[in-house]
This record gives sequence, structure tokens and C-alpha cells, in this order.
Amino acid sequence: MHVMILGGAGMVGRKLAERIARDGSLAGKAVDHLSLIDVVTPMTPHGFLGATDCTAADLSEAGVAAEVLKSRPDVIFHLAAVVSGEAEADLEKGYRVNLDGMRFLLDAIRGAQAQGAWKPRLVFASSIAVFGGDMPDVIGDDYFSTPQTSYGAQKAMCELLLADHARRGFIEGIGLRLPTVVVRPGKPNLAASGFFSNIIREPLVGLPAVLPVSDRVRHWMASPRATVGFFTHAAGLDTARLRGRNSLTMPGLSITVAEQIAALEKIAGPKAVALIKREPDERIIRIVDTWARGFDTSRAASLGFLAETKFEDIIQVHIEDELGGEIPVLG
Amino acid sequence: MHVMILGGAGMVGRKLAERIARDGSLAGKAVDHLSLIDVVTPMTPHGFLGATDCTAADLSEAGVAAEVLKSRPDVIFHLAAVVSGEAEADLEKGYRVNLDGMRFLLDAIRGAQAQGAWKPRLVFASSIAVFGGDMPDVIGDDYFSTPQTSYGAQKAMCELLLADHARRGFIEGIGLRLPTVVVRPGKPNLAASGFFSNIIREPLVGLPAVLPVSDRVRHWMASPRATVGFFTHAAGLDTARLRGRNSLTMPGLSITVAEQIAALEKIAGPKAVALIKREPDERIIRIVDTWARGFDTSRAASLGFLAETKFEDIIQVHIEDELGGEIPVLG
Repeated sequence: MHVMILGGAGMVGRKLAERIARDGSLAGKAVDHLSLIDVVTPMTPHGFLGATDCTAADLSEAGVAAEVLKSRPDVIFHLAAVVSGEAEADLEKGYRVNLDGMRFLLDAIRGAQAQGAWKPRLVFASSIAVFGGDMPDVIGDDYFSTPQTSYGAQKAMCELLLADHARRGFIEGIGLRLPTVVVRPGKPNLAASGFFSNIIREPLVGLPAVLPVSDRVRHWMASPRATVGFFTHAAGLDTARLRGRNSLTMPGLSITVAEQIAALEKIAGPKAVALIKREPDERIIRIVDTWARGFDTSRAASLGFLAETKFEDIIQVHIEDELGGEIPVLG
Repeated sequence: MHVMILGGAGMVGRKLAERIARDGSLAGKAVDHLSLIDVVTPMTPHGFLGATDCTAADLSEAGVAAEVLKSRPDVIFHLAAVVSGEAEADLEKGYRVNLDGMRFLLDAIRGAQAQGAWKPRLVFASSIAVFGGDMPDVIGDDYFSTPQTSYGAQKAMCELLLADHARRGFIEGIGLRLPTVVVRPGKPNLAASGFFSNIIREPLVGLPAVLPVSDRVRHWMASPRATVGFFTHAAGLDTARLRGRNSLTMPGLSITVAEQIAALEKIAGPKAVALIKREPDERIIRIVDTWARGFDTSRAASLGFLAETKFEDIIQVHIEDELGGEIPVLG
């Protein structure tokens, strides 16, 4: 099987490539070819026995998708996107990358089909940002999309494109509305959602972290490992079971900042917690206030998608996958 | 005030132009300039005292929208679209006209704003086709979009574009999900929904009509006059009252074919009803089966949108507006 990851240099794309390389298979089938594409050349994952090609290409330019798809992958993971903050700051770029990129991809698939039978599976990274504003505490899968960011609007539009192309038989399509991924590895970044990770990742290694919102803020989270699992599970799912509703919210944990901190204390003690500095930031408070707090993901559960059920497990995943299984003892 | 109608040669666009010409005003303000645009040159409405320009232009071509908008209209009614059947038969054309057309329009508005302050009101003709498939009998305004046609997918995507551009302050945007318009004037056409009109319009003038579905089929309808009223009302609505939910389902009548026929009998007698021939058509039965049957439009009602509340009134509108107020006595 030939697997392609668009956005293969991003955090989730890289971890997905590493997982497939390690397993050597996907959805029960051996993977002999792995293609990673991104605007910067993705890294070759370790230990993969099949062929790997890592290509720098911008899918938001006309014609690029057709070129990239000449190798006719069986499964395409589409994670390439401009993130929320950038799509809000640069409207044209957000629509070009996040919407036109998907459109070019689907156009290229249709174009290739005119030259011969090929029906790839397309697993699309959508986001809970398709919801926003005045929402119930628990959002069901039949709740309407009310994005409050251009990023969310673009993801919702891509979900519609995906479903229409799946309905018309061009692809096997499935869209995964990802929770906020916590604990994100790496350095603190300026994303408005960054603090959900920062307040765990930094104190675990003895560094300070800023909490810009109230302890009472509730949000929807899953670990990077669970997120990668959503994609590998979607690769093997019988899409007929989606009944034409091709995008669905992935499972996660609806948890408050206070509960995050309590879990951190349980695992790393009060000295770790003392490293969290409360510095309220009105801009971030306002943004976070428009975000979804929780979901009813019974549909995803019935289709076999799994995530962590307590925050200690999310911290444990970070310790295992990023810190070699151990945390330093804080002096 | 300068009012522009995109799709001004279509049935609703023409009636909207005639209504504005007759009133000489819109939303309580005098209209001194009316611009009608369509792919074929729209007709000049009768009796308008202000300036009228009727232009043939294809808004799905890059650059055309910017040209058309040089006159900086205060209110833009956007009704230009490829209809459902054509968007399904020709995927590329549907996306080009129905999606790119809206995109070019919004791009042109943003581009013009870079040259000087201008924030038009954009009233967009959406459709209940954004809903489809496995639905409840009564669909609320927070129900998710599950179009089962490319047309519906394109309308849903335009709703997202509209809301995003309104949120960002480029337009005052409002999207109207129109019911099926009944009784459509003119000749029987091949649209799958045509029979809802045909079985009334034709017998009223002594002509036969074909009913291709069961009498038990239930659907959501409003008259052409009520539909025009949705647009004129939307032109004056305080968009802050939409609370960022810029598109909403318009009121209508949830009624069965049997109830339509009973109303026809009341108004035109059994001889008219006898002109309806039952010829089941599996293709149309399958299509109609995926359509919405009814809506909870309390939100639209609270914002002052009005439609007929019984089918006799819809027939009466047709007799008044299309037949000069009288129906021939059937011999």
C-alpha cells in the first residue's frame, strides 16, 4: 500500500509518519511506500523498510496537486493547513491554503480518474474550530457549524467539499474534527491554545509557564498519540458506516484548567504546580471564550475511535513519548 | 439608495426588481438607482422613476465582479446561481458559478474597500437544499448542514463565506434559505421539484399536469410573492440581531401533495383536480425522498419574516399575480 501525508512536516503529520514507519502497516495492510509532502521538506521517518519520498511542494498553487498525485497513493492523509492565528491575520493566505488547497486536491483526483480507475481514501484533518460562539456545553454530531474564525470557516467548507466528492464517488472520504492536541511537544508558541500544553510541558521539566485564563476554563483535548490513532483508525474504517455524514468530532476529554493542574500535581508534585504563573491576558480570554467546551462523541465511539479518558493519561503519554518515560525530580 | 440584483433575469430576481420599481423604495429608503445583472441581459422593470441599468455579465469569471461593483451599490441581492439539476450534471460549472461566483464577489468587495470606505449589505439566496438525507421531520435553525446535492453543498459553503466576511466587518451579510417556490409561473420544466407547481398552475387554466410522486409527499413551500418579501425584509433588518448566525431558514408551509390538491379543489373544483395524472417516476421519487419536509422557523418569525400559512393563500397569490385575479371556468 502507498500512503501519502500532506502536511508531513507538521507535528501530527510527523508523528503519523513515524507511527506508520514503526508499524510497517496501516489498517491491516503492509505499507511499502510512504510519501511525505509539505511546504518544507519533511524528515524521513526512522526505521521504515519501504520506499520513502519526502517532497517540498505547495499544494495551494494550481497544478501542484496533480503532479504530486501522479504516484496514485491508496490513502491520502490531508493535514496541510495554515493555522488559526495565521488564517485570521492573513485572510487571502488562509483561503488559498486551507480552502483552495483542498479544492485543487479534489480537482486533481477527479482529473486523474479521467485517465483510469483510482479511488483513493482521503482522511482530512478538520477541527472543532468549525464550532464557535454561543454553543451548548455538550455539542452533538448533528449540531450546526458556526465558526468564529476564518480557519474554522475554511475547515467547515472543506468538510462540505469532502462529503460532496465522497457522495459522488470520487473518493472514500472521512473528516476528523480534531480536539486541541495536548501536550504539544516543543517550545511555547504564540497560538492562543498554547497554554493548555505549556502549563504541563514546561513545569514537568522544571521551567515556568504562564496561564493567561481562569482555572475554570473548560476545553476539549486529546494527546498527540490519540490524535495519530484517529488517523490510522480512519484509514481502515468502512466508510459506508458514515451514512453520508463524512466528518465527525473525535473523542477527547472535556476538562478544566484546574483539573489539568490537579493531574499535574498528582504526577509531578506541588513544586511543578508552583511554576505556573497566573497572568490574565484579555485577548486570549476573549478568544478562548468562543471555543467549544465539550462534545457528545458517541458516534465516533461507536465507530471505534478512542482517546484518553483522564488527564493523567495525557500527561503520561507526554512523559513516555517525549521525555523517555521519566520526569526530572524537581529540587 | 442604489440597489443591485445579481441574477436579475431569473424568476425571483425579476419579481424582486418589479417590486422595488413599484415601491420606489426599499427598507424605508427611496431607491434612485437599480442595477440588474445576469448572464443574459435582464429586462428593465416597468414604471421605475430612478436610473436603471441592465447588464449581461458572468460573475463566475475572474475580474467581472470588480467591474460590476465599481458603482458601489448600497444593497446587493445575490441570486445568481446554476440550479440544482445543472450543478449535479456539471460539477465544474456548479462550483464555478455557485461557489467561485460568491468568492469573486466577496474578493471584489474587499478589494474595493481598500480604495475607500464602503460596506454594502449582501443578501444571499441560499436554499433548504443545504439540508438533506436522514433528517428529523422538523428541522431547527441549529441543525447541521448535510446537503445531498452539489448545489446544496455549494450553498452551504457560500453561507460560511458570507458569515466569515460579515464577522470580519466587510459586509452586512444575511443568507436566506429559500423554501421551494410554489406556484412557479411559466411552463412546466424538468426540475425535480417542478411538479409541486405544475399540479396547480396547469389545472387552473384547464391543462393537464403530471404528478410523479405519492400524495403523501410532504414539502416546504412559499409563494413567489412571499419569497420576494423575504428579500425586501432582509434589506432592512438590523443584522446585529442575527448574532453571528447570518443564514436562516425562511418561513414556509409544510404541506403534503394531498393537501395541495384539496386546496386546488376548494378553489377550482373537481374538474381541475381531474386534470392531474398520477404517473410515478422512480427517479423523482428517489430525489424528493432526500428533501426536507418541514422546519421550525421561529427565529425567522421573531425577526419579522412572513409567509403564507395555508395553501389556498399560495394559490390565491398565483391567481392575483399571474392570472389577473381570475381563473377560467372549466367547461
